Amino acid sequence: MFSPFTYLIRRKELASHLGKGLALLLGNELSSMNYAANYYPQFRQDSTFLYYFGLDVPGLAAIVDLESGESILFGQEPTLDSMVWTGPEAGLDELASKCGVEKTLPIETLGEFLSLTGDRTVHYLPSYRPEHTIKYSTWLKKNSKEVKEGVSEALIHTIIRQRSTKVHAEIEQLDNAANVTHALHMTAMKYAKAGMKESDVVAELYAIAMRETGYPSFPIICTVHGEILHNHHYHNNLKEGDLLLVDCGGESAMHYAGDMTRTFPVSASFTQKQKEVYQAVLDASDQVVINLRPGVSYKEMHLLAARVLTENLKAIGLMKGDVEEAVAHGAHALFFPHGLGHMLGLDVHDMENLGEDFVGYDSTTRRNPQFGLSALRLGKELQAGYAITVEPGCYFIPGLIDNWKASNKLEAFINYEALESYRDFGGIRIEDDYIITENGSRLLGTPVPRTIAEVEEVRGAAL
Amino acid sequence: MFSPFTYLIRRKELASHLGKGLALLLGNELSSMNYAANYYPQFRQDSTFLYYFGLDVPGLAAIVDLESGESILFGQEPTLDSMVWTGPEAGLDELASKCGVEKTLPIETLGEFLSLTGDRTVHYLPSYRPEHTIKYSTWLKKNSKEVKEGVSEALIHTIIRQRSTKVHAEIEQLDNAANVTHALHMTAMKYAKAGMKESDVVAELYAIAMRETGYPSFPIICTVHGEILHNHHYHNNLKEGDLLLVDCGGESAMHYAGDMTRTFPVSASFTQKQKEVYQAVLDASDQVVINLRPGVSYKEMHLLAARVLTENLKAIGLMKGDVEEAVAHGAHALFFPHGLGHMLGLDVHDMENLGEDFVGYDSTTRRNPQFGLSALRLGKELQAGYAITVEPGCYFIPGLIDNWKASNKLEAFINYEALESYRDFGGIRIEDDYIITENGSRLLGTPVPRTIAEVEEVRGAAL
Repeated sequence: MFSPFTYLIRRKELASHLGKGLALLLGNELSSMNYAANYYPQFRQDSTFLYYFGLDVPGLAAIVDLESGESILFGQEPTLDSMVWTGPEAGLDELASKCGVEKTLPIETLGEFLSLTGDRTVHYLPSYRPEHTIKYSTWLKKNSKEVKEGVSEALIHTIIRQRSTKVHAEIEQLDNAANVTHALHMTAMKYAKAGMKESDVVAELYAIAMRETGYPSFPIICTVHGEILHNHHYHNNLKEGDLLLVDCGGESAMHYAGDMTRTFPVSASFTQKQKEVYQAVLDASDQVVINLRPGVSYKEMHLLAARVLTENLKAIGLMKGDVEEAVAHGAHALFFPHGLGHMLGLDVHDMENLGEDFVGYDSTTRRNPQFGLSALRLGKELQAGYAITVEPGCYFIPGLIDNWKASNKLEAFINYEALESYRDFGGIRIEDDYIITENGSRLLGTPVPRTIAEVEEVRGAAL
Repeated sequence: MFSPFTYLIRRKELASHLGKGLALLLGNELSSMNYAANYYPQFRQDSTFLYYFGLDVPGLAAIVDLESGESILFGQEPTLDSMVWTGPEAGLDELASKCGVEKTLPIETLGEFLSLTGDRTVHYLPSYRPEHTIKYSTWLKKNSKEVKEGVSEALIHTIIRQRSTKVHAEIEQLDNAANVTHALHMTAMKYAKAGMKESDVVAELYAIAMRETGYPSFPIICTVHGEILHNHHYHNNLKEGDLLLVDCGGESAMHYAGDMTRTFPVSASFTQKQKEVYQAVLDASDQVVINLRPGVSYKEMHLLAARVLTENLKAIGLMKGDVEEAVAHGAHALFFPHGLGHMLGLDVHDMENLGEDFVGYDSTTRRNPQFGLSALRLGKELQAGYAITVEPGCYFIPGLIDNWKASNKLEAFINYEALESYRDFGGIRIEDDYIITENGSRLLGTPVPRTIAEVEEVRGAAL
């Protein structure tokens, strides 16, 4: 945790921006698997709650008085029974003192407390777990439709403003998270061998994450079917000639996230075909990275990556026609159907629960509904202190190819015939984390091998 | 999965027992961590849904017509978008055919379907996730209080009757789960060394579980503070002289659970003091195991374990007075505050979501509210085909000792003075899984080293 003062200041700033009413901020609960007491091993606290209170234990909620700036922490005191089953725990006052809160109350009284505040506005955030809806519903005496409609955009915007710009101590956490992520990728790159299952590699990654700080920041993607963007199955065998795509991240001790992707050959080296596509993706990433700086629109960066990729795919013979025009029509999205990247912070897609468009777009940059661009989570201008991912990719998705080909979609730009021999290619993504600085950007954490030569060196030594 | 026929038969049996109305059975959803799309990596299907349908994918629900015995599977068809992001998936009809269901409908129509059934009773089960309450509330048009009150005891009892008795193919699964659990314990016993952190050992166990079948059946307990019964923190260092308590379980491919505990010295051998307490717990377990058979009350087995433990603790000098009387007063519960064991199956505490008392007690055996006995999950008579755990323990819980000592509680049976030098002893639990046979019981899975000599042999070889 940071010092109590840090959290106090953050809440004062929240209050001074909003100025009126109360903010109700929910901590998370443990999540049950197959019966109430059998929880998912990992407790994940709500990130906004972590940002303003830093308390990483389940069962809490807080109210910030936006006029006085004072907060009340709601929770339960430990019991003799809880001491026997889960060990000695901090009392509410001790928790409150860690984050500069002076008043605590039993959580059973939260509903009554709110009902006694009369007509003061209660600002609250969107639900992303069913438990949130039930709590809001109970405490605010609203049905679930009213809960959804009553969310406070003012609170959302204020929190996004505060959390978007990472201060020094947060950047340190992001570097730590990136370094855990570095350890994960070095392990994967050294460990994976033909004959293993994907799950063997994932098992090693889990072990590294648990030794370092705890759990991965999101479900690990580790697949020879990199063309399935969020593949969470690990049952395939690794074979010579395959590409293994590993997209994973660690967390820092304070739950800041890392998120990086590497794609490497299961054999000691890439094939010529793999090299060409890999270099296309790498070029796209490199071009973006040298252009990162405050004031640059991330949508423009996405389109830059798309153009570089398209140029390369033209050279390979998979695309054709005018590059600008191809990108304007979204032809590249057959190969690159996702966004270039997203904000990074206490969440791997930072603040996604507050609304992707509120986080990644603004009044000057709106989300484009074109296939591909529509999946871009971050489109607006970058600012110093933003932490972001840069993650171009190139995929050969048989189902999507068939779907487009059936209507000869954008055939002026796509060489469907040449594409046939790439149907079982899989997919390549390269992803790194950057912090936007006053004049440009800086890579977060220790660099993970990235060029063809660097990757082949590690693989060669490992095999 | 078993054959479609197996699931069909199970549902026919359910229907024939209940005879009237409809049974609404919910599959589980993925559970969100810090925003909607960032799920806990592990999807855990509802066990009752697995029992009747075997389908291990999120987002399903089913209705069994208890008069016709026919079922409808509700879910969503894969889309082009889901194919791009999560890969090609089975359609609803394909899923239905795997479990002998002939009719499928989009899940959006489930509420309407129910509203058109008129006054037919809809049987449903208790919620153990907030998502269940919201679904029942939406589909059955009830508020959360009504949802809670409307649960079907008839459905609960019928399911418990079916699921309690394990058939051959299920026992095979339980043996598989026990063998994964064996692998976990052998790893812990060979791997743990002074200087490591608890999390280093947990990391290895996770890796083994993921290599074998997936995730542990419950959050791993791996602690030098064995006196904290459900300790899920792993931050302590392992030191010479410590006892490490490891309570963990694997799952079979079909999600049957294993659940075993071993407590072993971080050094190569137990101290004399540790040996005495270990042997006390082992004696209790051994005495129970030789008495396991159909018709025996598990509450009696719990009391037998308590008596054996008390006799041993008398010999050590920690308890005193008449053994029967001490146990009748619950004096042993200062050392053994939990129950002897529980049912095991698709859940590690099998069917706990249906109600612990419905599963573990009946009209002839009621739960005893005395401290210690009140924590016994299974009290009723054993039957052939029950899978159970036997897990006596002996703990020295400073907070509990202080609490009792403050009022000289049961001082006729407890030697509080002698107890002082055990305050930092920790705790010991020994747990194995058994299937009740026609004439006795059989250990599930490969035996894990259990006697002092066996444990010391493994530790000696490992260090």
